[in-house]
Amino acid sequence: MTEDFSWSRDTAAKRLADTRQRVAEDTAETRHVFTQLFCDDLLPEALPDTPLSGALVSIKDLLDVEGYTTRAGTVFMANNPAAERDAEVVSRLRAQGCVFVGHTNMTELAYSGLGLNPHYGTPENARFPGCIPGGSTSGGAVSVALGFADFTIGTDTGGSLRIPAAFNGITGFKPSQSTASHRGCYPLSRSLDSIGPMARDVATCRTVWQAISEPGVVASRQVRPEFVIPENFGTDDMDPVVASAFDTAIAKLQEQGYSISTERLSALDRMKDLAVWQFSAVESRAVYNEAFTLRKDEFDPRVASRMARADEATAISYRQLLDARAALIPAFEAELDNRILLMPTVPILPPKMSVMEDDEAYSRLNLLVLRNPTVANVMNGCSLSLPFSDDGNLIGVMLTAANQSDLSLLDFAARIETALAELALPRRSPSA
Amino acid sequence: MTEDFSWSRDTAAKRLADTRQRVAEDTAETRHVFTQLFCDDLLPEALPDTPLSGALVSIKDLLDVEGYTTRAGTVFMANNPAAERDAEVVSRLRAQGCVFVGHTNMTELAYSGLGLNPHYGTPENARFPGCIPGGSTSGGAVSVALGFADFTIGTDTGGSLRIPAAFNGITGFKPSQSTASHRGCYPLSRSLDSIGPMARDVATCRTVWQAISEPGVVASRQVRPEFVIPENFGTDDMDPVVASAFDTAIAKLQEQGYSISTERLSALDRMKDLAVWQFSAVESRAVYNEAFTLRKDEFDPRVASRMARADEATAISYRQLLDARAALIPAFEAELDNRILLMPTVPILPPKMSVMEDDEAYSRLNLLVLRNPTVANVMNGCSLSLPFSDDGNLIGVMLTAANQSDLSLLDFAARIETALAELALPRRSPSA
Repeated sequence: MTEDFSWSRDTAAKRLADTRQRVAEDTAETRHVFTQLFCDDLLPEALPDTPLSGALVSIKDLLDVEGYTTRAGTVFMANNPAAERDAEVVSRLRAQGCVFVGHTNMTELAYSGLGLNPHYGTPENARFPGCIPGGSTSGGAVSVALGFADFTIGTDTGGSLRIPAAFNGITGFKPSQSTASHRGCYPLSRSLDSIGPMARDVATCRTVWQAISEPGVVASRQVRPEFVIPENFGTDDMDPVVASAFDTAIAKLQEQGYSISTERLSALDRMKDLAVWQFSAVESRAVYNEAFTLRKDEFDPRVASRMARADEATAISYRQLLDARAALIPAFEAELDNRILLMPTVPILPPKMSVMEDDEAYSRLNLLVLRNPTVANVMNGCSLSLPFSDDGNLIGVMLTAANQSDLSLLDFAARIETALAELALPRRSPSA
Repeated sequence: MTEDFSWSRDTAAKRLADTRQRVAEDTAETRHVFTQLFCDDLLPEALPDTPLSGALVSIKDLLDVEGYTTRAGTVFMANNPAAERDAEVVSRLRAQGCVFVGHTNMTELAYSGLGLNPHYGTPENARFPGCIPGGSTSGGAVSVALGFADFTIGTDTGGSLRIPAAFNGITGFKPSQSTASHRGCYPLSRSLDSIGPMARDVATCRTVWQAISEPGVVASRQVRPEFVIPENFGTDDMDPVVASAFDTAIAKLQEQGYSISTERLSALDRMKDLAVWQFSAVESRAVYNEAFTLRKDEFDPRVASRMARADEATAISYRQLLDARAALIPAFEAELDNRILLMPTVPILPPKMSVMEDDEAYSRLNLLVLRNPTVANVMNGCSLSLPFSDDGNLIGVMLTAANQSDLSLLDFAARIETALAELALPRRSPSA
């Protein structure tokens, strides 16, 4: 299934030049996808013989690339000195012969699931003109959907690799947090951040995940090929179009013999009682507090207002949140019992850009898109969003598994990717 | 070196009866060591064939023993229901055929290194009559020093297994935090707590550590047999008697060919800048906040005043402390470079009980005894206090190593234990 990225240097150079030219055209489609393009000299002199050699890669503007300033979608970091060293995951990809295209746009500090950025503009959704891209890895998803990159690297704190994947019809993978080093990656929430890829298929996500993982990472917990849909979580406020497409996906999987049960998972009820907002609020303030205090007017007001809520938390309430999460994870894992949690990635289709002008709509929709993906972050799991198209309606089908199930989840997801792409066949009678 | 604990059931029963009788005598020496003795029916019907079979064990009143209330040295938990299940480490020792003597006295919630308890009395130091036992595992150390138990299980958040070991002339081992399960153990600081043993020798600590460790724990990082004494940490306010005994220990080790260097370790300067007090204050309040709020008058005022300081921390400052610690650990490990940090466990001899009446002295001495051991907790390492006697002066010699070096540290410490026990020999000329 995976594309062959082992391009010759000439081919890679040509593809890079083509991408740069397309981006330079600065159409509504391409505008705001990148916050900066890297120079041609990032193309290595000789490409090594690896599965990712010559692949074009875009990097979320949150990960250091040597020689370039990492802005994390902010203004207050825009004049920082250039990074002296690649982030660990960037360095691993460079060793594989990947070709870095540019830093992609994102929500400021990755602090929202919608993907808006008032400083650098908001990329348009690659599939739905005039609609938001989803975030926070907005430009990353669009860069892949438009073919500017073979894959992208971003972060996921509450869905930032899966929401924009769902909204742009590609595949996004949030690995188990500990599989990749976070050196050289600006944090939003150190508790919940994970680094991972978005690509056009599962096989590429798998190859990239293995390339960026720390040496010695096994992540060999085995999932059982059974789905569980929570009856008490994830289906409120669902757009009927998404609900219908999700039902079609379920029917298709059942038709092909996959076991899908619906169950109440009490750990998800307990999760609803957690003050999950404290993770990003408190943990981002811990890191960016000086800028927040001295240069608050340079922040996206919608990010600043969320960071300000850290002052509502006390040290005690925040620690209680950490403790409650630590107790919840094993309870969730016991209930999940190595099965795959199945939910629509996002319960709505990408909203129109214009809807975002209203602060109340922004807040409501932001919480709504983050809701389902956040389960994997809070429960310390791994999770993947697969695109599914039903009569022209495009949704994300999200598979979530327990911590360290990455390899098994990816292998299973590759089968599901095929299953979802199959044409529905008429049922054959048992005697056939 | 290790004692043979593979007693017959009859011998174990007799030893247990002897202990119970000695404790029942209620002399100044034995008073307040235990907060409750367990019933005879804790002696198993048949003893399994294990290295710890029939060993008498005392348990800090912070770890659940089925059928008994865990009070954690408090009054507010005194009427809690009996534990329905052993703590994980207790359960592991029970499976080894250990015989549980009783719950040992401790500082309330383990919140001090001196070992005083106003509710249940303070055990007298086993070696220095009229002096404090050190804490927080006060009764545990005394129970071993007096021979009431072959070993004891306690916790160590800033030295609670090493300070009382040093003060009572026994060996205390704080393992790497992650090696033992904390299920059934009441926390003080979830960041810094470790569960481990005190015993009369290193070999017993090693056997017990292996018995209480989670299956699959390897902790196989290798230490290099070289000591480093920090020149910028641990020697201020040292009692001259302790300094002299420590110098003797150093001379003895050098005489036997051990490499000992003195170096500035910059990570220890950085550690001085951390608000380390927030760990226990914030994290204990997170767990016991309801009792603290509703029943504060039942708390030891010296514990309550320390817990009250949690209100001085903000969620942001506390998170910054977690982040700073996470950054400091690898810096420390890089400087230590798998060598052994060598310090006196405690820079003073055990103070008189009477000194403790003064709040100012209590505060000052508490910080002083915690100072050196806390390095291992903050740096996520493992650490052992060995007793050393020099002209009748008894001190603790503390060996600290990086996280997951437990097995290698214990093996090395067994050699050092022998080396420190050797009579100093006159230097032989090379020609001899």
